[in-house]
Amino acid sequence: MAPQWVTKLEPSGPQGAELLKQERDNSNIPVERLSEFLFTRETLDRQDQILKILIADKVFDKSQNYFDGRLERFKTALARQKRLSQLSKKHKWTADEYQMASELISEPGPYGLHVSMFLITLRDQGTPEQHRLFLEKAEKYEYIGCYAQTELGHGSNVRGLETTATWNSDDKTFTIHSPHLTASKWWIGSLGRTANHAVVMAQLIIDGKAYGPHPFVVQIRDLHTHEALENIYVGDIGPKFGTMDNGYLLLNHVKIPHVNMLAKFSSVDPKTNKYVKPASASLVYGTLTWVRSTIVLQSGGVLARGVTIATRYAAVRRQFQDRDAKEWETGENQVLNYTMVQIRLLPLLAATYALHFTGRGMMALYQENQKKMAADAGKLASTSRGPSPEELFPSTDLLADLHATSCGLKALASTTAAEGLEVCRRACGGHGYSSFSGIGSWYADYLPTTTWEGDNYMLTQQVARYLLKSARAVLKGTASDNDTSRIFKSFLSRRDMGAAFDVLGQDEDIVAAFAWRTSFLTFEALKHRDEEKGSWNSLLVDFWRLSTAHSQYLIVKNFWEALQTERVATELGEETAALMRKLFRLYALHTLEREASEFFSSSAVTVRQIQLARTKTVMKLLEEIRPHAVRLVDAWNFPDWQLDSSLGRYDGKVYEDLFRRASELNPLNALTIDPYPDSGILIKKNEIETFRSKL
Amino acid sequence: MAPQWVTKLEPSGPQGAELLKQERDNSNIPVERLSEFLFTRETLDRQDQILKILIADKVFDKSQNYFDGRLERFKTALARQKRLSQLSKKHKWTADEYQMASELISEPGPYGLHVSMFLITLRDQGTPEQHRLFLEKAEKYEYIGCYAQTELGHGSNVRGLETTATWNSDDKTFTIHSPHLTASKWWIGSLGRTANHAVVMAQLIIDGKAYGPHPFVVQIRDLHTHEALENIYVGDIGPKFGTMDNGYLLLNHVKIPHVNMLAKFSSVDPKTNKYVKPASASLVYGTLTWVRSTIVLQSGGVLARGVTIATRYAAVRRQFQDRDAKEWETGENQVLNYTMVQIRLLPLLAATYALHFTGRGMMALYQENQKKMAADAGKLASTSRGPSPEELFPSTDLLADLHATSCGLKALASTTAAEGLEVCRRACGGHGYSSFSGIGSWYADYLPTTTWEGDNYMLTQQVARYLLKSARAVLKGTASDNDTSRIFKSFLSRRDMGAAFDVLGQDEDIVAAFAWRTSFLTFEALKHRDEEKGSWNSLLVDFWRLSTAHSQYLIVKNFWEALQTERVATELGEETAALMRKLFRLYALHTLEREASEFFSSSAVTVRQIQLARTKTVMKLLEEIRPHAVRLVDAWNFPDWQLDSSLGRYDGKVYEDLFRRASELNPLNALTIDPYPDSGILIKKNEIETFRSKL
Repeated sequence: MAPQWVTKLEPSGPQGAELLKQERDNSNIPVERLSEFLFTRETLDRQDQILKILIADKVFDKSQNYFDGRLERFKTALARQKRLSQLSKKHKWTADEYQMASELISEPGPYGLHVSMFLITLRDQGTPEQHRLFLEKAEKYEYIGCYAQTELGHGSNVRGLETTATWNSDDKTFTIHSPHLTASKWWIGSLGRTANHAVVMAQLIIDGKAYGPHPFVVQIRDLHTHEALENIYVGDIGPKFGTMDNGYLLLNHVKIPHVNMLAKFSSVDPKTNKYVKPASASLVYGTLTWVRSTIVLQSGGVLARGVTIATRYAAVRRQFQDRDAKEWETGENQVLNYTMVQIRLLPLLAATYALHFTGRGMMALYQENQKKMAADAGKLASTSRGPSPEELFPSTDLLADLHATSCGLKALASTTAAEGLEVCRRACGGHGYSSFSGIGSWYADYLPTTTWEGDNYMLTQQVARYLLKSARAVLKGTASDNDTSRIFKSFLSRRDMGAAFDVLGQDEDIVAAFAWRTSFLTFEALKHRDEEKGSWNSLLVDFWRLSTAHSQYLIVKNFWEALQTERVATELGEETAALMRKLFRLYALHTLEREASEFFSSSAVTVRQIQLARTKTVMKLLEEIRPHAVRLVDAWNFPDWQLDSSLGRYDGKVYEDLFRRASELNPLNALTIDPYPDSGILIKKNEIETFRSKL
Repeated sequence: MAPQWVTKLEPSGPQGAELLKQERDNSNIPVERLSEFLFTRETLDRQDQILKILIADKVFDKSQNYFDGRLERFKTALARQKRLSQLSKKHKWTADEYQMASELISEPGPYGLHVSMFLITLRDQGTPEQHRLFLEKAEKYEYIGCYAQTELGHGSNVRGLETTATWNSDDKTFTIHSPHLTASKWWIGSLGRTANHAVVMAQLIIDGKAYGPHPFVVQIRDLHTHEALENIYVGDIGPKFGTMDNGYLLLNHVKIPHVNMLAKFSSVDPKTNKYVKPASASLVYGTLTWVRSTIVLQSGGVLARGVTIATRYAAVRRQFQDRDAKEWETGENQVLNYTMVQIRLLPLLAATYALHFTGRGMMALYQENQKKMAADAGKLASTSRGPSPEELFPSTDLLADLHATSCGLKALASTTAAEGLEVCRRACGGHGYSSFSGIGSWYADYLPTTTWEGDNYMLTQQVARYLLKSARAVLKGTASDNDTSRIFKSFLSRRDMGAAFDVLGQDEDIVAAFAWRTSFLTFEALKHRDEEKGSWNSLLVDFWRLSTAHSQYLIVKNFWEALQTERVATELGEETAALMRKLFRLYALHTLEREASEFFSSSAVTVRQIQLARTKTVMKLLEEIRPHAVRLVDAWNFPDWQLDSSLGRYDGKVYEDLFRRASELNPLNALTIDPYPDSGILIKKNEIETFRSKL
């Protein structure tokens, strides 16, 4: 316990609470209406109700999260997941509501992959019979599963997987086997300690012939003892970013019945012992596109957590006097007033909105496509092996466009969110290094998103391939009418006269300039590949630039279009709508300025325009947006309980909270050591257990 | 224990060992000679001897490092530091040798700040009497100390510190006091649990008048019980990046004798009760310049650890076939062959050498300055308060130049190293997220370097201020003859005709182009500030760009000059010397290309040159350097024991090591859980203790 003279101490004024009140008083952005505009009233209300339920439950108490080691974290996470699924049953939560609860808890848990991948794969790729056999038990948590694709030696290249599933025509079974150490499944979420079943992706082999990777349901642990079954070697792969029990799995000639191959799309006919081709490779992989679209949709909120924390703290934290301060001005300046801080935080604030609206557009595109898919399915190329990249691009125009869009945007959105979070953490100065900032662990849990569901660098090749294809089609005159071919055509028509976009005056011209740059880079790359016959490998860097440029165009376009709708002015009011347009300009021009060289080597803009954008327009926008920064992050509506951050508290009591966590909650302080090198003893006194139980 | 069928498994071929052998066979860079060139033979031999001593000692066994939680890590680190100081005494290690041992152990330990800051401060700022009273005991580890400057509410702004030291003329003592919660010392390394003394920076107050921050020696814990003394509230601030016991400290009217104010530079005369001014403020702060120079010198090696790990793994890891591969080419391609991987790793490889040579140049400059300092001391401005930024820049030309150089290079070098490490980790793909990569924890321990000893963003203001000053002097014709004024003069003389540097043909022209850009940005900034009267705050972003540009010039210049010396060709041979020049060009042109817009808005180069640099020259350099990549990292000579990385092993046995650590060393695998939501139980079986004792 702290002595009384300590408990009486207060931070020196002005208090964080006063400073945040000031910030909120100095702006008239209607926070609540903006929140509703982003999430709808219903969603916000549901979140409040669910939050109450969680806070009332002691198992969800977060006070020791930052102190616990990996083992403790895992045990706690498991206890919470058990409780969560009980609550979900009790309150009859929908999948969305369960998801909402998980996001409020904000920790990857042992059931994570059971819910997100195991159930979905069984549902999407299983036959009705397999639904009865596996899905029903899985939904009741009798079977707890994971999705075992990646191997120790094989990441992005699915076709390189080494695990085999050999068809035994005699007894109508499959033998699942790991031929090498590198065939060990690796990084499989929920596999380490939790799952008793796995969907194993393995190379199907019939009569000595390989048919590519297919999904097989394999039981790996005993349903009662939970020990690994015979000829199965499974465990956790050890400490890493994030707290989940990612696992490894080796199988030694394990036999499974015919029905365990998920057979909705492709299968083995037990009578003829022949392979039955999938109706459509793309249907199988629709899931991937959906997953990527979700990543885009979530990226805005992911980044917004960091921006909320850093912006509120930058309004509370004060350092130095303004160098031009008048004699009579005393006291230190709020960090948020320094342009060097604004240039780091405010464009990210703009990005949170840009990504949110882009995610919405992306989802709309996905829904539209789902309708067409079934219809088009028949026309699509089918395959006798695992689908090749080309097969991931069936000729159907919309699907190809959607696939490329989801690849490019997944890569850019997750990279923007991840790197943006780190920028936010650093903008918090020294205290950004403390776990209590709440950004570090959130960043660590999110970071792998830049690698999974398609490595962000690998994905850019798919985007480039699509753009080159479309460009060739445009030149041949065989292109179908979509946005991509439209921007290419208008580029070709004006190419020689060059462009003269008024990016500093007209918002449409900003969008046009981004389109122009994409088109320019596409036809440059096409020249290198088709005319100069450059090797694919020698062009990877250009392709990566191209994909980034195209995805930035898509974000700028989506953001701009979202602001054209009637809703904006009517629901937000003209003043807020105008501020939204400033956020659009800040995001777009700051990006344009950072990518300057591509913009004027493509002569989309002049050097002079870039210089003006940098030195005048962007700085002006920072000044105009600054007063609304705190309200703009408030609109993201993160409860303190979810942020779990000393720096990002809504009430601004930053220093009190940092001090309380360090002095009252910190187990290390129950340890009295012997500091002298020559003494034999290490610990003089250790009250940690009693200390912990006191909590 | 793994069953026999598991222990028999091998990775699928080709084996990592073969691949790395191949890499080393395909290059004839004399690794050993290059290592000697970088470190000298003596240093390498000393390191080998010390390494043997450490490995032989069980307390330094690293096998559980990545698994241990914070408490375990701290206890282990303490045990190691005790042992280390015993070994140091036994083997009569010099400070350099002790440092070498610490770097091999590679973990921030509880004695870290005692050695680096407490001893140095006592030595540099104490009088002979104070050396007898404090330093001698500290060197014997009877007093174990820390340096308590930063406060909960005050980071970079030393003059804003709230802790007070009030002189009591009656009994000739000081009263040290923390008036507010924000006055709590915070982030103080070794203070949390270890130190029994602290050098406390506090505002000296005599007779109601404040004289700015000064250093006071304060005992904080009992020398026998190690419990906090009365009216002192001290503890650890909680989990964060890195493993040190950073602490907080509040003092409640604590009285200390007159002799506890470190009085070498300034003091209070106990007879007259008057403040005695320091001989020279800059002497006091020479330490800071030294610390920054050391950071620059170390940054190359810090980054080289990540580059070594990522490069070796990229040679072992194989993914996909080259898209243009011939039919008969089978098997996957080494990741290091992909240009998208080369463009991320090889410029960083070049940067490790660039930073190393720059650090050397920096240190030489520092030594040269130390000689002058004493002589010039008399001429320097003195102060009656804590030194102001201006006083950190005494008029002496060399010192001002050194200070600015150390600020700018510290900022750029530590940022380059920290961000480069993260690039290396990501270049390792999925396995980069595993703690066993060895990059994550190293990055986490290093990252704070970008904030301490001067926040990297704050420092850029000092560089800009210096450059503006020099520019004004050049215009006035009062500038003394140093490199900065020389490049400014040559810029002004050719400004109107513009430049036409042959950056693709002549190495000197590359250096000249960087100098031109710095000069251009300086006079631009000068115009904004002096003619357009722009506010300081509105120019912070320009200043940051300017400082970065100038520091990049300094690195390019230092790298180039290092390669002009006779030694290079004679000691390395012409072939290796030529490769070094390619590394120089890669670092410089890759930087130039990334900063393209500044280079041609300053008309240092043309758009065409940039495009050629990007699409031709840089890609060509990647191709030429690629075959030597593994040997070039080998030359950095990191023992496996130091790297402690599965991915960066010298022998390439990446997958065996990842698997061994996960399955054999991982305590979580001793935990058998009950996975079912409705069961009351959490853990079925827990053998962790026995498991751990087995190790």
